[in-house]
Parts: sequence; C-alpha cells; structure tokens
Amino acid sequence: MDLSQIKEPKQIKPLSIPELEKLAADIREFLIKKLSVTGGHLAPNLGVVELTLALHYLFDSPKDKFLWDVGHQVYVHKILTGRADQFDTLRQFKGLSGFPKRAESEHDIWETGHSSTSLSAAMGMAISRDLKGEKHRVIAIIGDGAMTGGMALEALNHIGHEQRNMMIILNDNEMSIAPNVGALHNYLGKLRTDNRYVKAKEELELLLKKIPAIGGKLAKTAEKIKDSLKYLVLNGILFEELGLTYFGPINGHNFEDLFTALKQADKTPGPVLVHILTKKGKGYKPAELDSDKFHGISPYKIESGEVVKKSSPPSYTEIFGRTIVKIGGQDKKIVAITAAMPSGTGLTLFQAMYPKRFFDVGIAEQHATTMAAGLAVEGMKPVLAIYSTFLQRGYDQLVHDVTRQNLHVTFAIDRAGFVGADGETHHGVFDIAYLRSLPNMTIMMPKDENELQHLLYTAIEYCDGPVAVRYPRGSGLGVELDEEFQPIPIGKFEIVSNGQDVVILAVGPMVHLALQAASKLAEIGIEPMVVNARFIKPLDEEMLLDFADKGLDILTVEEGVIKGGFGSSILEFYSEHQKEMNIRMIGIPDQFIEQGSIPELRELVGLTAENIAEQVKNLIFHKQRA
Amino acid sequence: MDLSQIKEPKQIKPLSIPELEKLAADIREFLIKKLSVTGGHLAPNLGVVELTLALHYLFDSPKDKFLWDVGHQVYVHKILTGRADQFDTLRQFKGLSGFPKRAESEHDIWETGHSSTSLSAAMGMAISRDLKGEKHRVIAIIGDGAMTGGMALEALNHIGHEQRNMMIILNDNEMSIAPNVGALHNYLGKLRTDNRYVKAKEELELLLKKIPAIGGKLAKTAEKIKDSLKYLVLNGILFEELGLTYFGPINGHNFEDLFTALKQADKTPGPVLVHILTKKGKGYKPAELDSDKFHGISPYKIESGEVVKKSSPPSYTEIFGRTIVKIGGQDKKIVAITAAMPSGTGLTLFQAMYPKRFFDVGIAEQHATTMAAGLAVEGMKPVLAIYSTFLQRGYDQLVHDVTRQNLHVTFAIDRAGFVGADGETHHGVFDIAYLRSLPNMTIMMPKDENELQHLLYTAIEYCDGPVAVRYPRGSGLGVELDEEFQPIPIGKFEIVSNGQDVVILAVGPMVHLALQAASKLAEIGIEPMVVNARFIKPLDEEMLLDFADKGLDILTVEEGVIKGGFGSSILEFYSEHQKEMNIRMIGIPDQFIEQGSIPELRELVGLTAENIAEQVKNLIFHKQRA
Repeated sequence: MDLSQIKEPKQIKPLSIPELEKLAADIREFLIKKLSVTGGHLAPNLGVVELTLALHYLFDSPKDKFLWDVGHQVYVHKILTGRADQFDTLRQFKGLSGFPKRAESEHDIWETGHSSTSLSAAMGMAISRDLKGEKHRVIAIIGDGAMTGGMALEALNHIGHEQRNMMIILNDNEMSIAPNVGALHNYLGKLRTDNRYVKAKEELELLLKKIPAIGGKLAKTAEKIKDSLKYLVLNGILFEELGLTYFGPINGHNFEDLFTALKQADKTPGPVLVHILTKKGKGYKPAELDSDKFHGISPYKIESGEVVKKSSPPSYTEIFGRTIVKIGGQDKKIVAITAAMPSGTGLTLFQAMYPKRFFDVGIAEQHATTMAAGLAVEGMKPVLAIYSTFLQRGYDQLVHDVTRQNLHVTFAIDRAGFVGADGETHHGVFDIAYLRSLPNMTIMMPKDENELQHLLYTAIEYCDGPVAVRYPRGSGLGVELDEEFQPIPIGKFEIVSNGQDVVILAVGPMVHLALQAASKLAEIGIEPMVVNARFIKPLDEEMLLDFADKGLDILTVEEGVIKGGFGSSILEFYSEHQKEMNIRMIGIPDQFIEQGSIPELRELVGLTAENIAEQVKNLIFHKQRA
Repeated sequence: MDLSQIKEPKQIKPLSIPELEKLAADIREFLIKKLSVTGGHLAPNLGVVELTLALHYLFDSPKDKFLWDVGHQVYVHKILTGRADQFDTLRQFKGLSGFPKRAESEHDIWETGHSSTSLSAAMGMAISRDLKGEKHRVIAIIGDGAMTGGMALEALNHIGHEQRNMMIILNDNEMSIAPNVGALHNYLGKLRTDNRYVKAKEELELLLKKIPAIGGKLAKTAEKIKDSLKYLVLNGILFEELGLTYFGPINGHNFEDLFTALKQADKTPGPVLVHILTKKGKGYKPAELDSDKFHGISPYKIESGEVVKKSSPPSYTEIFGRTIVKIGGQDKKIVAITAAMPSGTGLTLFQAMYPKRFFDVGIAEQHATTMAAGLAVEGMKPVLAIYSTFLQRGYDQLVHDVTRQNLHVTFAIDRAGFVGADGETHHGVFDIAYLRSLPNMTIMMPKDENELQHLLYTAIEYCDGPVAVRYPRGSGLGVELDEEFQPIPIGKFEIVSNGQDVVILAVGPMVHLALQAASKLAEIGIEPMVVNARFIKPLDEEMLLDFADKGLDILTVEEGVIKGGFGSSILEFYSEHQKEMNIRMIGIPDQFIEQGSIPELRELVGLTAENIAEQVKNLIFHKQRA
C-alpha cells in the first residue's frame, strides 16, 4: 500500500484483520527504509504499529484524545494522520517533527518530549470534558519506563481518586531506553510471567467454583469469603488497589487480542488500565536484538543495521565516560548515578567496571538528585550524569536539598546548548539561568574535550559544594587529550587570544567560534581579546575588574537563553561594582527554538563567527562615535 | 519532669513504659504551653510524641539515621536531643529552627522543609553505609500526605528494587495539611478500616487451616494453592508488591504496640514499611478538633485554642480567595487547583461555592501544573494557587508543558518574597529568576491588595499564554478595595510618585518602601521618581527608553535574588538597546536567608526605606562626581 494515500485515520476502518496485518507490515517496511536515511526513533515505533492501528481503528481521533507519553513513538500515528509523505524531512530543520506537534495536525493534541506527562494532561482533559458536558474518550499511551516518573505516579494517585472515564494504555516493552529498573518494573514482570499469579488465579477460580459442593459449616464460611477473596486474585492488583480497573497482560502485536481488550476496557466505567506487551524493534531483527541502540538511531544500513559512521572526534559524552572511569578508579568515594540513561550519558563503562558504585534509578530525576544529596551528606562523592533538559525535573531538589545544604554533588550536565533534531523539548538552554541564581553553586563549561577532563577532575576532587560541569552534545574538537588531569583554579577565566580592542567573553563551544571571529577581524586590523569563561559561576572578578580599568568593551557569547544567562551575570557584576561598561550579549532570544542541526540553529540565532565579528565591529564603531 | 534536663536521647532508655507515658504527657504539656506563646507546628508534633519517644528509646541516634520528612514534626526530637531550653526562641530570628538543622545538633542529619524528600535521602544514606561497610539503621519518617509526592513514589520504586536494609515509618494521620486526597489515601483508609481486608485475612486463614481436613481431589488443589494464596491476603499488599515488607497498621499512641512492631520490623532484612496510625493534635482538644488550623498556628490561648488576633488588614491570600470567587462566579471556565493547601492558598470559599471546578490533587505540584496545562489546552481557564517555594517542584512542567505550548494557565503565586518563620526552605525568592527566563511567560506583582484584584482579573481574562501573579505573605496595606475589577494594560508600569533625580523601580511591597524612602529624601531636597514595576515581564519598554532619553539613573528594588532577578532584566534591556545607564540593584544577595520576621529579614539584606534612600543618595553623588 502506498502510505501517502492515507489522509485520515478513518480510511483504515473498513479494513479486515488480514488487511490490517498487511498494512502493519507495510508501515514497518516504510519506517525501516525511511529512517535508514534520516535516522530517528525506530525501535519504539516498530513496537507500537499494531497498537496505533488498533487505536485508530476502534476510536475516533481527534474527537477522542490520544496522548502519547514522551512522544517519540508517534511515527505510526503520523502516517495514519496523513503525514507519510513528509518522512524524508523527519527531525530536520523546518521538517516533520519526531514528536507530536499541535501545529502539524489536529490529531496531535498534546505536545511532548519529556516523559511521564500524559496522565496529568489526560486528567485535565477528562475534567474539561466532564465540565463541558462533552462525550469523548481520553486515552493516554504510556511506557512502563515513563510510568515510574514521579509525576505519572502523582497522576495515577489522583486518577484513581477522581474515578473519571479515561483509558491508560500501559505499553510495556520492558524498556525505557535502557532496560528498565525498579520495583514497579519487577511487579510488571511478575504480571507477565510469574506462574504464581496465573496459577493462583486459575486455581482459586476452580476452588470457588467447587466450594458450593462442600457441605456443612465450611461451605458457609467459604461462601462468605467468596466475594471478599475474588478481588485478591485479580491480575494487576496494584493498579486495582489504586482504583483503576486492570486489563491484561495483552499481546500488543495481535489485533484480535488488542480489539477484545480495548473494547472491553472501553465499556468499563471509570479509569481503566490496559497492560499491553510489545516488543521494541518488532519486525526488524537488528532492532529487536539491540533495541537500546535503535531507540534513537542515526542513518544505518538496512541489511545489517550498521550505523553509517562519519569519522569524527570522540564525543563529549565519551570523554566524560572515560574520565569518570579514570577518576573513579582512583577515588572509591565516587558513585555514579543516571536516571535511565547509562548509555546516553556515557556511564556504561563505569557501570561495567564499578557496578557497586553505579546506580540507574529509572526515569526519576527528582529521586536521583536527592539520593545524590543523601550520599553526599554521608561523605560520598556522587556524580549525577544527566542531560540539561532532564535536570529541569530535579530543580526543586537542586534548590532545597543540594544547594541549600551546600552538599558536594557533581552534576555532569550533558546536552547543554542546542541538541539538534529532538528540538524544542530537548534543548539544554535554560540551565545557566536556573543554576546561577542558586547560592553555593559552582558552574563550569569547558572550551573543548581536553578541558572537560580537567574541569571534571577539578569539580569532583577540588570543589566542596554543589558543582555543575556542563558540556555540549556531539563531537569534541578533536584536540589532543592530556594524560594527566590538572586542577583548574576555581573562578579563573583563560585568555585564549590576546588583543586590545574588545573582549569576547565566550562560554564552552563558543570559544572556538570566537577564535574564528578573531581571525576574521585580524584581517581588517581589529584584535579582540578572546577569553574562555570556563567558570560561569563564580566569575573571574579580578580579570573582569581589570577589563574595567582598561576601559575595554565586552561581548558575551553563550549558547543559552539571554534572559538570566551568563551575559546577564556580567552586567550584574559591573552594576554591583559601579563600573559603567559597554556590554553586548549574543545568546538565545526569548523564544523556544525549533529542531534542526546544531549549526543551522546557531545560524538562526546568530551564534556564528560572522555575527560575533559583526558585533565586535559594532562595539568599536559605537565607541568611536561616542 | 524538667525537660531541659534531657541532654541526650539515651537518658530515656532506662525508663519504664509508665514512665515513658508520663514523659509523653509532660512533652505535650510543654509543647502546648510553649507554642501558645511562639506559635509553630503544634498538631503534627502532638501526633508523634509516642512515635518519637519509641524511636529514640529503641534505636541509637545519631549513629542510626533518623530522617524526618517535611521536618515540621521534629519538635519532640529536638526536646529529646537537648534543645528544650531553646523553645522560647522557636522559629524566631537567630532562634531555634522549626525544622531539622544540621548546625543545631548532630542528631539532625538531614534538613528539610519541603515534603517527600526523606526516602530518596535515606536511599542515598543506605547505599553510603553499605559501600563503606558500616552497620547502622536508616529510618525515614514520612506522612501519608508526603508519600503521594512524586519523588517519594520514585524513591519507593527504587527502594523496592534495591532491597537494602532500611525502615520507612509511614505516619498516617489521614492529613497532609488539609485532609488528604488520592487513591493511595483511599487505599490506606481501607487498610485502616475496611472490613473486607480484615475479614478476608481472618477468614482465609481459617479456611487454609481447615482445608487439610477436606478429603479427595479438592484437598490436593487446595494444598497446592495455599502458598500461592497466602501472600494475597497480607495487609499492605500494595507495598508488598513493590518489594517492601509491610507491618501494620499500628496504634501510634501505644508504646507496647509501637515497640513490638518496630522491633519486629528491625529484625526483618530488606526494606520495611511500618504503617503507624497517629492523631494530629493528640492530647489537646482544640487541636484534635481542628488539626488543619493547628497545623502551623500563631500564638493562641491555651484554654480555648483561640488565636491571639492582632487587628490587621486582610491578607493577600484572603484577597486572592475573594477575588477568585468573584471572577469564578462570572466565568464558568475557571477551574481552581491546589496541591494539598486549599486553606493556605485561600481557596476554601471557592471550593465551597464551586466544588465541581475545584481540585485538590494532594502534594503533587508536578501533576497540578501539567493537569492545568491539560485543562488549558481544552479551553478551560485553570488557576493554580501555590506558594512560590512549592512551585519549584513544577519547574520542568512549567517549561515543557505550560510555557513551551504557550498555554493560558494562571499561576497565583502566594508567599512570594520572604515568608518569615519557616525560613530558608520556604522563602519565595527564586521565582522571578526562574520564571522570567522562560519564553511566553507574563509575570505580575501588585503594589497592594487592591491592585492584586485587578492584576488577577487581567491575568485570567486578558492574557492568552502562561501568566503568574505573585504576591507576598501576610497582610495587605489596608488600602480601599475597588468594587469593580479593571484590566491593567499588559506591560505598563505605573508612576506612583513623580520626581527627576533618580528613578526607583520597585516591585510589589517594595513600592511602599520606596515611597517611604522618597518622603525621607524629600526632606533633604531630593526627589526621586517612584515607579511600580507591576509587570516583571514584559517590561514597560517605552517608559524605560524614556528614562534613557532623560538620562535618569535607576535603582531597582525587589524582594528576590539579585542573580537573574528583576534588576538583572533591566540591565539586559538597556544592554540590548545599547544605552549606557547607571543602574544599581537592591535585592537578596547570593546566599540562603535564615528564619526571622519579614521586617528583620528585610533589614538583614537592606530592603528598607533607609537603605533605598541611601542608595539613591549614592547614585546622585556618583553622578555629581562623574
């Protein structure tokens, strides 16, 4: 079938089950082919082909509200809602988003990217429906990994209490990105496989049937307890206890099973939970065998599943991973923590070498942050490896537990700055602003991957309180890596290029762009000083005062929001010291930035060597005019 | 007994149960008397007298680690650890904290204030203990309300998985502050009272005993299912399913019951949960009858429990409560949401009048925020009433769900600025910094309670996207309240006092202080302009540019952190517009600020009319010198 013929989901309603199975196969073939070129979240989408078809077959989007938790499993939904022909632009600048986007389709009613939001949003929609007296379904589709996120559990607690009509599809693939952890996961595992449950259920049912045949006093007792016992042998008692009706587990790749369960659930009043078992990567062997690798993947060869490698220097993530292993080998107090991303954060080697000092807590950033604080208060040296955007989930814990108690927790903040194809939900552009306003916090960012080693070492071994080392997504610059780690003096900037006209105060990867700008400017006789502001907090006060004494103008450059960002801290510093300075800032303007390659997005907001050079010229012109 | 004789908890170990009961009575009398003068968290502490005594009697603090969730129930612990003689200074400037404080005692090993952190911290401590090869207990004491906070549930999931030795005391008083809500609460209620559970357990045990007597084939079946059934009729199956051993429910006011359960739990390997029933306010009738009122209370008359009223104008909270009822009566799209604080946030009247449009979601700020987003996306007008410090828990939801999707959610942010006696965990001093860096956000603060009405009306009825109206703790200024609400033009400041020398740009209650400063200055012939910066975002660009044209110097005054705060946004504005201005900022320096009365704390950081006047003089002197 030509999938671009599907303009609306209702087109699949007349299909027979064999036809749906054929369509499922076509969709898998389409996804495997398209994503081999663009990359994308292949494995999660291959896992929900039948589920998505079943939902659109039985129910009526957009009248019925489908909320896709996390949202990276929405490709099949996009195909069924008329967007197959846009897959060549998937996750590209101005192209099809890899997540639900309200601007793309009326069928995308709720935008996501971060996990565990769907149940809360669904609760809001169900309340809204009931208040308005409308009749429609509200259906949240959530993975077993996302279900352990604190806000999903908060929502479950409220949903069980409110008893409104809504359906939760628990898409259980035993994975978040990495294999799932936690007691809830173990519990789901029992539901899936433990004979005790199945046996207990079957045999108690048998017993209950036979009991009326028993004579005498015992029969009466037996009778009396029948009702009170029944609910104890239901599957999914944990959910039942929380007030939801449980259906499952259901084979999520079998249409008949799906239809039966979903129809039954749909007839049940109040909140229902349908536990569906799916296989990530289903139907594509390389992805079935390594669904972690194929969770979000770069372009690959279809036959082998081999990723099309571009030769590039090691990534910052990789350097972090190597460095933490090296430091962790020398210092047994170091404990590494991840929230469900051992591979994404570069901790797999540490996990393998020091399993007792490695903790994957599941999708639970709040818990991860405060658990680190608990370790630190007892004298351990916890390192929480986390993406900038996900640390947002631990903000209150950062304030209340870590910085307020001034505890030595190291935050290894990956994906700081633009992240590229994942787009606006994932850019790590707020952390400078939200971290630097917290007392006791030290914030560092290296200019290259070699400096990352030294700053990490400094953070872990030479800092006392909370400290963040932030670094960008992607490859380093390919610089040589020192064998020995050196401590970097806290709060000392580095002059990377001397000059006299203007100071370019650059953060992280912007230092490299600033040097490029300086080269361009040298051609026309302008010699800016380029400074690596490797400490975002505390600032190099001595150097900043020296700039004031010399009457230098300053251009700050950072890949983060301008409002409350690094440049803003420079303005504050000079205001506090009553120095009237001429300062300009380049950074991210006050809007959410779309998806695109990192260079495209930098171009979009003016984080380029050209614009840096231009702004330096403006500063000089401004001064000459004054 | 003279409680100030207790210097160390081991002093109670030789006591008999009758002696412990006498001590409990003495402690209650002490607390009721002392708090009648100082105020404080009476009801929670009266509820945990026996529990705290039992813990210190059986176990060995500080070697054993006691983690008090939220921490306001720590008074008895303070008495038993040698701090009885400091209770006259409770919650006062430089006095005894109402929360655990590491600087106060080696028995306070973990500081709190916000809820639901104890399990994560306990997990960190248990890991640390095991890695270091130490042997001691880790005991978290957590209320049933705090247990529904997302991070506690995240921790529970991890604790069940890790299976380390630790004890969770679930202090179930059926209350967080207001009566508790949620499915978990309902579940705990069943454990406490539902006959089905008790009956099912008793009768199945009876049946299981009798089954061997049954002959024939059925006996075999029955035998086979005995083991598999047993665990189904355990109490606390929800916790058992998550991997914890459950004990309870236990009468938390009976020493023998407590000792038996705690000793049994202590012998059990792995994580255990001891479900203890206590009564908030136990032993003091007025507090038993209205434990909500006595949760945190001002000085009261011991005989009647009547609060010693000072006559003062209505609080901002009260004006918010009245206003939302009035607006909500006209506009049926308004839905009010609280996270477990209907009374604290002033929503009780709204709850009574519009129960279908009122939602208390329990201690679940993340869920509250995203549920509001779910309502807004469907065209409702949700108003989330929340304290500034607790909104920190919903930060990622604010970024990812509300501002990114540009949804019209109104945040009624109470307790913005210093909160007084609750101290550093509760001051609402970061929200300007963390909110203003988010795109699409509108932020307002009224200069007085009358303006609060108009700004709320404007926020709810005249804004499109996310909007925050922040207001301080405590009484308004006593100004007259307009009958009719008026929309305030978005992004327009108000000149409240004309002048020419310097502009004082003041936020919220600082406007009043600025006017006082202006009066003082007028006496020496200086006439500053005083401006009410009622929009923190967007700024009044026209007025700011006008100041630049007139060459005016500016002093910003805000009760929030300077780093990334309102003043910082003024610096950014002029930098962006390439205006060299002379700007000074008064606000909260880069440190956590202790407890004290609000005037004491303002004095501490220089938020006084005197200092404002002083800084204006400095600005003028600086200019004359230049």
